[in-house]
Amino acid sequence: MSGSNFGTLFRVSTFGESHCAGVGAIVDGCPPNLELTEADIQKQLTRRRPGQSKVNTPRDEKDQVKILSGTEHGKTLGTPIGLFVANQDQRPHDYGEMSQIPRPSHADFTYQSKYGNRASSGGGRSSARETIGRVAAGAIAEKWLSEQHGVEIVAWVSACGDLEASEVNPDTISRDQVDQNIIRCPDMKAAEEMIARVTALKEAGDSIGGVLNCVIRNCPAGWGEPVFDKLEAKLAQAMMSIPATKGFEIGSGFAGARMQGSQHNDPFVMKGNRLGTVTNYSGGVQGGISNGEPILFRVAIKPVATISKAQPTADFSGNETVLEAKGRHDPFVVNRAVPIVESMAAMVLMDMALIQRSRA
Amino acid sequence: MSGSNFGTLFRVSTFGESHCAGVGAIVDGCPPNLELTEADIQKQLTRRRPGQSKVNTPRDEKDQVKILSGTEHGKTLGTPIGLFVANQDQRPHDYGEMSQIPRPSHADFTYQSKYGNRASSGGGRSSARETIGRVAAGAIAEKWLSEQHGVEIVAWVSACGDLEASEVNPDTISRDQVDQNIIRCPDMKAAEEMIARVTALKEAGDSIGGVLNCVIRNCPAGWGEPVFDKLEAKLAQAMMSIPATKGFEIGSGFAGARMQGSQHNDPFVMKGNRLGTVTNYSGGVQGGISNGEPILFRVAIKPVATISKAQPTADFSGNETVLEAKGRHDPFVVNRAVPIVESMAAMVLMDMALIQRSRA
Amino acid sequence: MSGSNFGTLFRVSTFGESHCAGVGAIVDGCPPNLELTEADIQKQLTRRRPGQSKVNTPRDEKDQVKILSGTEHGKTLGTPIGLFVANQDQRPHDYGEMSQIPRPSHADFTYQSKYGNRASSGGGRSSARETIGRVAAGAIAEKWLSEQHGVEIVAWVSACGDLEASEVNPDTISRDQVDQNIIRCPDMKAAEEMIARVTALKEAGDSIGGVLNCVIRNCPAGWGEPVFDKLEAKLAQAMMSIPATKGFEIGSGFAGARMQGSQHNDPFVMKGNRLGTVTNYSGGVQGGISNGEPILFRVAIKPVATISKAQPTADFSGNETVLEAKGRHDPFVVNRAVPIVESMAAMVLMDMALIQRSRA
Amino acid sequence: MSGSNFGTLFRVSTFGESHCAGVGAIVDGCPPNLELTEADIQKQLTRRRPGQSKVNTPRDEKDQVKILSGTEHGKTLGTPIGLFVANQDQRPHDYGEMSQIPRPSHADFTYQSKYGNRASSGGGRSSARETIGRVAAGAIAEKWLSEQHGVEIVAWVSACGDLEASEVNPDTISRDQVDQNIIRCPDMKAAEEMIARVTALKEAGDSIGGVLNCVIRNCPAGWGEPVFDKLEAKLAQAMMSIPATKGFEIGSGFAGARMQGSQHNDPFVMKGNRLGTVTNYSGGVQGGISNGEPILFRVAIKPVATISKAQPTADFSGNETVLEAKGRHDPFVVNRAVPIVESMAAMVLMDMALIQRSRA
Repeated sequence: MSGSNFGTLFRVSTFGESHCAGVGAIVDGCPPNLELTEADIQKQLTRRRPGQSKVNTPRDEKDQVKILSGTEHGKTLGTPIGLFVANQDQRPHDYGEMSQIPRPSHADFTYQSKYGNRASSGGGRSSARETIGRVAAGAIAEKWLSEQHGVEIVAWVSACGDLEASEVNPDTISRDQVDQNIIRCPDMKAAEEMIARVTALKEAGDSIGGVLNCVIRNCPAGWGEPVFDKLEAKLAQAMMSIPATKGFEIGSGFAGARMQGSQHNDPFVMKGNRLGTVTNYSGGVQGGISNGEPILFRVAIKPVATISKAQPTADFSGNETVLEAKGRHDPFVVNRAVPIVESMAAMVLMDMALIQRSRA
Repeated sequence: MSGSNFGTLFRVSTFGESHCAGVGAIVDGCPPNLELTEADIQKQLTRRRPGQSKVNTPRDEKDQVKILSGTEHGKTLGTPIGLFVANQDQRPHDYGEMSQIPRPSHADFTYQSKYGNRASSGGGRSSARETIGRVAAGAIAEKWLSEQHGVEIVAWVSACGDLEASEVNPDTISRDQVDQNIIRCPDMKAAEEMIARVTALKEAGDSIGGVLNCVIRNCPAGWGEPVFDKLEAKLAQAMMSIPATKGFEIGSGFAGARMQGSQHNDPFVMKGNRLGTVTNYSGGVQGGISNGEPILFRVAIKPVATISKAQPTADFSGNETVLEAKGRHDPFVVNRAVPIVESMAAMVLMDMALIQRSRA
Repeated sequence: MSGSNFGTLFRVSTFGESHCAGVGAIVDGCPPNLELTEADIQKQLTRRRPGQSKVNTPRDEKDQVKILSGTEHGKTLGTPIGLFVANQDQRPHDYGEMSQIPRPSHADFTYQSKYGNRASSGGGRSSARETIGRVAAGAIAEKWLSEQHGVEIVAWVSACGDLEASEVNPDTISRDQVDQNIIRCPDMKAAEEMIARVTALKEAGDSIGGVLNCVIRNCPAGWGEPVFDKLEAKLAQAMMSIPATKGFEIGSGFAGARMQGSQHNDPFVMKGNRLGTVTNYSGGVQGGISNGEPILFRVAIKPVATISKAQPTADFSGNETVLEAKGRHDPFVVNRAVPIVESMAAMVLMDMALIQRSRA
Repeated sequence: MSGSNFGTLFRVSTFGESHCAGVGAIVDGCPPNLELTEADIQKQLTRRRPGQSKVNTPRDEKDQVKILSGTEHGKTLGTPIGLFVANQDQRPHDYGEMSQIPRPSHADFTYQSKYGNRASSGGGRSSARETIGRVAAGAIAEKWLSEQHGVEIVAWVSACGDLEASEVNPDTISRDQVDQNIIRCPDMKAAEEMIARVTALKEAGDSIGGVLNCVIRNCPAGWGEPVFDKLEAKLAQAMMSIPATKGFEIGSGFAGARMQGSQHNDPFVMKGNRLGTVTNYSGGVQGGISNGEPILFRVAIKPVATISKAQPTADFSGNETVLEAKGRHDPFVVNRAVPIVESMAAMVLMDMALIQRSRA
């Protein structure tokens, strides 16, 4: 266990820094005979990559995925699926003077503390580029979940700073709706305000945080393992493993802590041929196991740490200095996190689904 | 992986339902030659057990732990430490009519969906009694962390419903201070209001949720594994695996999502002979790795699902019915979760510490 | 990973030394609704325990297993099954002078090197008593494999020193036949010679090694995972983890290394409605995956290290000395290893079966 | 767990079939700041590849390794090391008529049974080409073990069919000596006979098995985990996971089963400043933990299953047929297995070394 593996039966191992040959993942444990081509994976990778809009960084990394192994004639073999995306810039950089200054709220200092070295890109595996392997692996899980169980996973931007979207209907929201604007907030009016806010902060060399909501529909009852591997626990790990996340809520979340039991309990009711609940404060899980209702969770993302504004700080030796980051930086990344959140959710669910199948 | 194991090198396996012989844990991977007796473990178990005060259930379960293996002459051998707490009531119950009605927001329905059966206690391993094994195991981790690194872990109740404690100083708060009142809120004035609120809800047959804060002090820089096993990710899994939790935040949490990068970034500054940060919005972790600052996190707990108030709901067959739970029930459990949160935090940290040692 | 856990989905964690409260295991991942009582487990434990015959040590440890958790009303819940056998002698001993002398070919020296301490029993978890947890866990696996797939596992003593049993028919050999004599060799004539040999060595204060054969019948084709977790690889790990084992062979084994491909290849042939093989040099596995033929393997056991004969050796400080072990010692343990081998085989198979089910 | 991962802290995940883009491995958990270039890895890969001599297949696959990630400026970062070797022939083949006939003692039938499909190469991941990832990963482990602990690992061919090498001195044997002849048997006279035997079998369209011996020198006392992860148990798993292996012995092995305790026990004696043993029937491990003596083990390899000789067998539908494999095939692969055995041994040891470090 050194951090880059996830899952028990659907096991994903990612690799790669920003300035090596490339990044990718090995997906072990995908069942055989799933139809799978690079196009199936590329879709989410393309949604993830930078350079897509004026609210994101203008770098246009192509991020074309290549399947290295594990499929033949367009179908999975059941063996490890190798996934690879080449880096455009494969030379280790020398950050010069900047490399003497750990960037505030970046991982430069902690990687140096942990490893006694740093990749030239600073935070090494803490870079957003690392998430490419996750998104590629998650796209496979999504396809299987969709084909086998009709599972649908949709994430969207519900807040940008203090701008909040009005409520979105989790029963109907679709990815098409989410992608209707560049900030991926399905409330078009709020989206406009968010875009204006981000654009202004970009000019100011600053950044801002936000919140993602995610719904998982058609998850059967019975997924998730008791005690340490509860469904919400693994979702929490998955989400809090995404760079820049600061919080996770399921169902009622922190608001639920303010409620009384008589308000918060979800009464049972027959829904077609299954037992469902009238309300869904539980967020689709009870005792760590899915109950058949939509799984609802939220993820808090901090403001991007790299800003152009001058920051007083200290260098590695403790000398006071001022850091001014050069180049263009993303003022907002919550919209780009949408496919990452969906992918991590898919990885968790598929692993749980396979484990539950073993009991059948 | 079926849920009851946690950790890679410090590996905890828990077992036990409410009405079997007992509950406990096997702790594998504890280094040898740690002084350890049952008294070291009992302390936190006693803080966890019910029947401690008027705000909790009057059941007085003794919960005396017995070390089954792994120590000799008061020291750990380095081999698995067996921990066992006998149940007072070891007969599987028959809930009679009630067993036909899945309790709202309990795990009766999901366990039935998952396993095609239910323990007589209803939610089986989702019971709070399961946490005994965690607390026992966590007490061992705490002792090692304290002796080897001076690590201190203190949790407290920061909110009961909408009653919130005024700010607590995480640098100095102690367990003695937390235990000064029965609700474990170090703000004495807020504590009084909370106790009054809970007492009133108890009379009304209702319950209420709350929030726990936790600080980890003296954690060295460099703990936590990149990518999927980031320190905050494993803490999130650990906390969200505790029964009744609905949310997790580290550092600035959801509030951080509202901030701008220029406000949120933690500038570096020399603190004695180490590089520290001026602010701590990061909550002691950057890029998933501890940075030497206090680790600060919060956990949301939903209101207790078992209430005496009548609840309209449906039975397993979907027939409408009304559930009235009998007996005395905890109207508030957030104070009892204090040692559980501390124990899970200790388990995460110790595992990370051992993994980091392997690199030395 | 500190050694006392085995399996991925059917996960066994054992604990206990010779002089602590007891020994046992936690079995996580057993499917729900398997009928299971202590009697189902006791049978193999009783076959394992010492004191059964004149060729073994006369100590009569009762080894009564108690189920601590995970079953109700005689059925598994799907939750961790706690298994416990109390030790008769629970006081840590002081071996006095003897404790200064590491016993040759025992684990006293290596445990001291590894942990900087030793359990009073010397080799701690290397004791044969540790295998109680395995046998208890294996009995559960056996029951499930038998009920779900008709799997039969039978081991027997095929050699005692240079005395070898004539060939045994693996298609028909039964545990009843194996247990017909105290040395568990189904060749009655060889068994008599073996018993005489062992009896003579007992008088001489010496010991002798031997070989076990094992057959697994009715294992479906398709179990075992490619590459590192090949069925024969996990069987090899399982068998070589049993105390005192020195070798493992599957199918043709070392004899196969002397053969030519044209002799060794197993041609296919229709057997009823399945494709089988004419010969079975492969031992029931090809490419690490079961092929439906009987799985055949052999395990070499070294002579018991504890002997009464005086042994020149050195103490921990390197001083030359002579060790004379006191008390009665088993001159032969290969017959007692029969249920241990069967149990470990069952644990491997059940884990593989559950993993394969996840693909269904 | 789906078979392609190995190790706990030094974790290797391999991928790739014969006719996809390539094969390789991700190595997670390698400590930072180890000097590492492709040349360090290539050496063992070159020893592994086919086409090296007249006793092996004349195919000359270049097998040039590329490091995809995890190093910068010639040093490891501590992050996952991606390793890749492109396949020369990346088109999935159609074996035509042959694909209807499962090759005897190959994995065609078992892969079909397990996955409901087969890679065009037949046995998919059971191909020898899969071992490239292992050898690349093992080369990294070897370098670390050598630099940190002076560990030396040397394997050689000790038998080809019934031709056996005279005894080789495990204290001095070197890889240079092993590589002095093409069959990698350090007994030059036996080597000549072996080469003649293999050459004759090649002409006859047949193949032959053999035995490898391996010694690990300078392994410190204290490596290996008790119970299930004993050093010999993990070595056994590692070796029996190599294609075509049928047996594993440590120390005295099956011969030890014929011995008496008074002969087999290894008396202690002072060796310089450490306690060693006079004899080494234990093979360097006691109770699953290294004792500081050379670790000695042997691996049996069956004859290559692919032969040119006509073989009567059945097709997948059970119809009797005759299989005649086309093309050139290796009549003997035991010499090529030398670096594979060394690599797997290194992977096991490094993982154990890191785990033991965590206790320090």
